[in-house]
Amino acid sequence: MTQLEQARAGTITEAVQLVAQAECVEPDVLSARVAEGTVVIPLNKRNTGIRPVGIGKGLTIKVNANIGTSGDQADPEEELKKLRVAIDAKADTIMDLSTGGDITRLRRAVMENSTVPVGTVPIYQAAVEAVRSNGGIIHMTPDLVFSAVEDHARDGVDFMTIHAGVTLAALEQLRSQGRTTDIVSRGGAFLATWMLYHKAENPLYEQYERLLSIAREYDITLSLGDGLRPGCLADATDRAQIHELLTLGELAQRASDAGVQVMIEGPGHVPLDQVEAQVVLQKRLCNGAPFYVLGPLVTDIAAGHDHIACAIGGAVAGMAGADFLCYVTPSEHLKLPSVDDVREGVIAARIAAHAADIARGLERAINTDKEMSKARKGLDWDKQISLSIDPVKAKAYRSSSQPSSNDVCTMCGGFCAIKIIKDYFDS
Amino acid sequence: MTQLEQARAGTITEAVQLVAQAECVEPDVLSARVAEGTVVIPLNKRNTGIRPVGIGKGLTIKVNANIGTSGDQADPEEELKKLRVAIDAKADTIMDLSTGGDITRLRRAVMENSTVPVGTVPIYQAAVEAVRSNGGIIHMTPDLVFSAVEDHARDGVDFMTIHAGVTLAALEQLRSQGRTTDIVSRGGAFLATWMLYHKAENPLYEQYERLLSIAREYDITLSLGDGLRPGCLADATDRAQIHELLTLGELAQRASDAGVQVMIEGPGHVPLDQVEAQVVLQKRLCNGAPFYVLGPLVTDIAAGHDHIACAIGGAVAGMAGADFLCYVTPSEHLKLPSVDDVREGVIAARIAAHAADIARGLERAINTDKEMSKARKGLDWDKQISLSIDPVKAKAYRSSSQPSSNDVCTMCGGFCAIKIIKDYFDS
Repeated sequence: MTQLEQARAGTITEAVQLVAQAECVEPDVLSARVAEGTVVIPLNKRNTGIRPVGIGKGLTIKVNANIGTSGDQADPEEELKKLRVAIDAKADTIMDLSTGGDITRLRRAVMENSTVPVGTVPIYQAAVEAVRSNGGIIHMTPDLVFSAVEDHARDGVDFMTIHAGVTLAALEQLRSQGRTTDIVSRGGAFLATWMLYHKAENPLYEQYERLLSIAREYDITLSLGDGLRPGCLADATDRAQIHELLTLGELAQRASDAGVQVMIEGPGHVPLDQVEAQVVLQKRLCNGAPFYVLGPLVTDIAAGHDHIACAIGGAVAGMAGADFLCYVTPSEHLKLPSVDDVREGVIAARIAAHAADIARGLERAINTDKEMSKARKGLDWDKQISLSIDPVKAKAYRSSSQPSSNDVCTMCGGFCAIKIIKDYFDS
Repeated sequence: MTQLEQARAGTITEAVQLVAQAECVEPDVLSARVAEGTVVIPLNKRNTGIRPVGIGKGLTIKVNANIGTSGDQADPEEELKKLRVAIDAKADTIMDLSTGGDITRLRRAVMENSTVPVGTVPIYQAAVEAVRSNGGIIHMTPDLVFSAVEDHARDGVDFMTIHAGVTLAALEQLRSQGRTTDIVSRGGAFLATWMLYHKAENPLYEQYERLLSIAREYDITLSLGDGLRPGCLADATDRAQIHELLTLGELAQRASDAGVQVMIEGPGHVPLDQVEAQVVLQKRLCNGAPFYVLGPLVTDIAAGHDHIACAIGGAVAGMAGADFLCYVTPSEHLKLPSVDDVREGVIAARIAAHAADIARGLERAINTDKEMSKARKGLDWDKQISLSIDPVKAKAYRSSSQPSSNDVCTMCGGFCAIKIIKDYFDS
């Protein structure tokens, strides 16, 4: 039985117990949420030894870090370094999005080295293999797609992005409406190209039952991808995007009915004033399934600093109810991220997630900040550093600029407001 | 006559004309907003040769960068470097907050070198002089405070932070209620210490007419400071803060009646779910006067990355109606910012301001992103870089990671979604 089926049967699984403990919620409350589909615990039956992570209603907002090679940069050692750095910076999950080098070997190395749940996008492998063996994405067969899904499942992947909502009807919607940047999702682009060439329906949609049976067998959590997500603010919340979201809502229900855990992926590029509406819509149309957003980026022009544009959108999405933030690194739109970019990306997304946790009234999150404020008031620098979201950088910054008096910092020196008030009241 | 008086008399000043042109608004519309106090143009009569900047209703959101020495780091050359870097990164205004070294000399050098309006906090100089000459802030006399205001005015400073809302009544409100971090504003702490020691009212409040007559003489824009701003999320929107805001509303009206331009400073540390309320409250209580926010930081634990916490809060505040964002650098809470920190801080605040401009429907801001999206769709990398908010970093990132094919980037290499779709439709 899958996690979902066990929850429905009233069994409190070990994964539920561990997540409940980590999140300070009652196991039966959590199990009921898994049963109703508002929480997922991505955990492949074959993946043992990782710490299970809960995503959804009433839990802290989680952060995912994408790693993986491209055709232009395919050094597996570098990607494993990124894996370690992302986990050190407290990413909750990792996605391996490799499209270069020996994809299978790297995925297995990631599975072996990751202490957190791992996600993949099997269609990438199918497309890469079609290009390598037959010279083009149009040569990708449905069997190749499903065999990639099965390979990833067997390797123990915990969640998979599946672009089953890129249907012929959705593409027609996109065509008739027109768009500024058409399709920017790789999975969406691979499938659209194949579908338009063959004038055939998306195999992941048409053979969705086949997909569900693999997912059910290994207890894969499906992450229904938004292959038509807006690639710029001008395309956000348009007919193509919402058409796909309607399909994803329907597919989420079918997954849930089949005992398969499911979450929904969201944009992308969204103007700040549309972010809340995006979340409200997803929650309503997908029956409260966890929402996994990529950003959203609230401007198109922040290349080099897209982790900041992402933190703004992610925090507002989180406040509105998004459950899972996919990081964006400073290198987005420019290059494959470096190890440092990965670190920056994780921290920025964690700031957004934490700010949203506080805004949602999560007591543990609020208390962390209270502790920090007391340390600040007490001019306790060691405690301030240890409570920081990034103690490494906080410590390095403080060490780089020594104040003449140890109880203040060089920003205000002796004119530190906190010290002045403290000295006055203590004297 | 001041800008405000001229606007009320129906004169379209040269400053109004220049700002109207830069902002693509009609000069008479802008002048009417200056007259009603919803827009300010900080411009000291003595400060010639700078580009005037408008702040408020219907205009792009502006970004301020703080520079200045402390007792622990007082290298004037370093501060002038920060000035240049901030202006290069497109800060709209500069505040010199120096409390170390030869404060007067540095201020004059900043005035001489700045091409944008300059603000200061004269109470800092009064406090530093009281400590240097007489050994303590409690020796700061009202005359010393007003002489600092007058010195800064004579030097051509365009706007000044004046903590006139730190009244005995507000301090009593703070005491009776209790707070986690009491007072974190330097100006607030200096004044509170003096007031509590002398059991006397804040001279900036008690002798507000004296202040207004200096401001009117030089056409200084008053930036009514929030000396009791919350220093942590737990203190946000509390009785002490709102008591002070009520006073600032009253003082803003008196300034306006006296022909003096005025804006209101706001927090600080605010949970994301209270940011909008803060702006609504300020606008209502201060009759639509421009709102100048410091952050707000949406978490207390982002030391080392507070520019990101600030970008989140600033974007949401901007969307709700804030007009002017004071940057926060990565060094906040840890040290005096370096030149690099200044640069990072300006860019982060500009991303927030731009995202909010778009959310507020500002056509020019929306069009910039559309242009970028078209360049992205066209795989036009030179244009993408030149349209970036930080072309220097965007260019450096792209150069650091050369793709094998010039029309893509190393993120996806040949599997670039945009390229795949383009090739398909072009073939």
